[in-house]
Amino acid sequence: MSRIAYVNGRYVPHRSATVHVEDRGYQFADGVYEVIAVSRGRLVDGEGHFARLDRSLAELRIAPAMSRASMRVVIDEILRRNGVDEGIVYIQMTRGVAPRDHAFPKASRTAVVMTARKKKPPSPAALEQGVRVITIPDIRWSRCDIKSVSLLPNVLGKQQAVEAGAFEAWQVDKDGMVTEGTSTNAWIVTAAGELVTRQPSDAILNGITRLAVLEIVRARGLSLVERPFSLAEAKAASEAFITSTTSFVLPVVRVDDAVIGSGAPGPVSRALRARYVEHMSAPA
Amino acid sequence: MSRIAYVNGRYVPHRSATVHVEDRGYQFADGVYEVIAVSRGRLVDGEGHFARLDRSLAELRIAPAMSRASMRVVIDEILRRNGVDEGIVYIQMTRGVAPRDHAFPKASRTAVVMTARKKKPPSPAALEQGVRVITIPDIRWSRCDIKSVSLLPNVLGKQQAVEAGAFEAWQVDKDGMVTEGTSTNAWIVTAAGELVTRQPSDAILNGITRLAVLEIVRARGLSLVERPFSLAEAKAASEAFITSTTSFVLPVVRVDDAVIGSGAPGPVSRALRARYVEHMSAPA
Repeated sequence: MSRIAYVNGRYVPHRSATVHVEDRGYQFADGVYEVIAVSRGRLVDGEGHFARLDRSLAELRIAPAMSRASMRVVIDEILRRNGVDEGIVYIQMTRGVAPRDHAFPKASRTAVVMTARKKKPPSPAALEQGVRVITIPDIRWSRCDIKSVSLLPNVLGKQQAVEAGAFEAWQVDKDGMVTEGTSTNAWIVTAAGELVTRQPSDAILNGITRLAVLEIVRARGLSLVERPFSLAEAKAASEAFITSTTSFVLPVVRVDDAVIGSGAPGPVSRALRARYVEHMSAPA
Repeated sequence: MSRIAYVNGRYVPHRSATVHVEDRGYQFADGVYEVIAVSRGRLVDGEGHFARLDRSLAELRIAPAMSRASMRVVIDEILRRNGVDEGIVYIQMTRGVAPRDHAFPKASRTAVVMTARKKKPPSPAALEQGVRVITIPDIRWSRCDIKSVSLLPNVLGKQQAVEAGAFEAWQVDKDGMVTEGTSTNAWIVTAAGELVTRQPSDAILNGITRLAVLEIVRARGLSLVERPFSLAEAKAASEAFITSTTSFVLPVVRVDDAVIGSGAPGPVSRALRARYVEHMSAPA
């Protein structure tokens, strides 16, 4: 089965899925995206992702390329054509093609690309052993709440993590507070057993998995506060974990050189992961 | 004559010049670019642009797509095929095509796009009357010295300028100091007659036109200091101007609501522009 992508109204073979060199996504990072997990052939938190896509587009004043209902139709189609039962859907919309000029073009049509691919969940080993994160200065722009394709700092940060043998890099702001990972949200459990994760603001992307886990946390009545936490707090935490569409809830057992808790995934992280995996398979 | 672009080794009609949807330039803004002015069929400060391109690539650890000599050959070819005698060349290189993942791909080939187009110099009216700039907070990342395609904040800033009826937006850092325009460098002449422009650092792109004008300033023995200047200083300046590949030296006569000097282009800006235009036509 050869892969099929959806590009500006057409289903095309993945290898020949192309956009114009003057697509503003290519020349200006003038676009947004979403990655949605697929579990048992269904989107996980699809509505949450669509709502965030709408928000990102609105913040950049890019017209949506299609209605939510049409997007559902296209996604069903590419899931089917690519035989994706467990995996991810990638959606990108940009301000479209126009002669290169920084300001918005007077007329342009929103460009849209959607792809689907099979992807296994994080390895059981990663879950059993937990992962390492390093920390790096947060050098990104001031609108990290917009899920734009302006991801170069995230790319550089993730690469630093990989080269350090870590899974992720937590970004630390000028005040010494952790913002988030390069493609994940950051959480800790304090020694007192309180869950802490940074509140939504321009400084972080409000993860859809983050929101789903918050729901679980609240439904279970766990002690929770949304606030910035410092790198020192993170290193002294009894547990730490990250959340994202593709990592779900992934325990962190080392932050830089500091071993977190016992050095193995803790009970809160494990419980939240189990509940989140249930949530992924739950009827929408 | 239909336009021709160069894309990854081929000369193709502009309308069918495309890149893959998984080109990292499209998904991650993981690439760099240069815009080079063409005057009388020749590149203006070509070597300066090539050197900066090399620097940007090196900072991101992207391998150059081709040698400088090969680039010259391709550029000559697209200038000829597009009949460009006065205009611009656009060069973009990205980390290439790879399955989407933030970290650098283990293997990828640098993608390259080059286009040429006719473009007239800034209108004589703009030169005679000068242009307006507005000011906005600088919300960009911390590596503005890299000429990356991660330009979304610049796009948003330029659009604000256009909607305010201005030519450019000067970005102001947290300390109230002007960094630069969204696609231009910023200069003032103080009441004491001293030229001031911000020194190269991570906070600005070290413009090739900026460097050429600095040479002219030094050759003429004008009083100059490279340092940050405040918005208040800018508003109290006797002259102001911007420099860029496509604006050359363009007088600024208003900064927000403040009229600069007499409200008309001043003598220093005019003289520097004249010298720069001579420089553009000078043998390389």
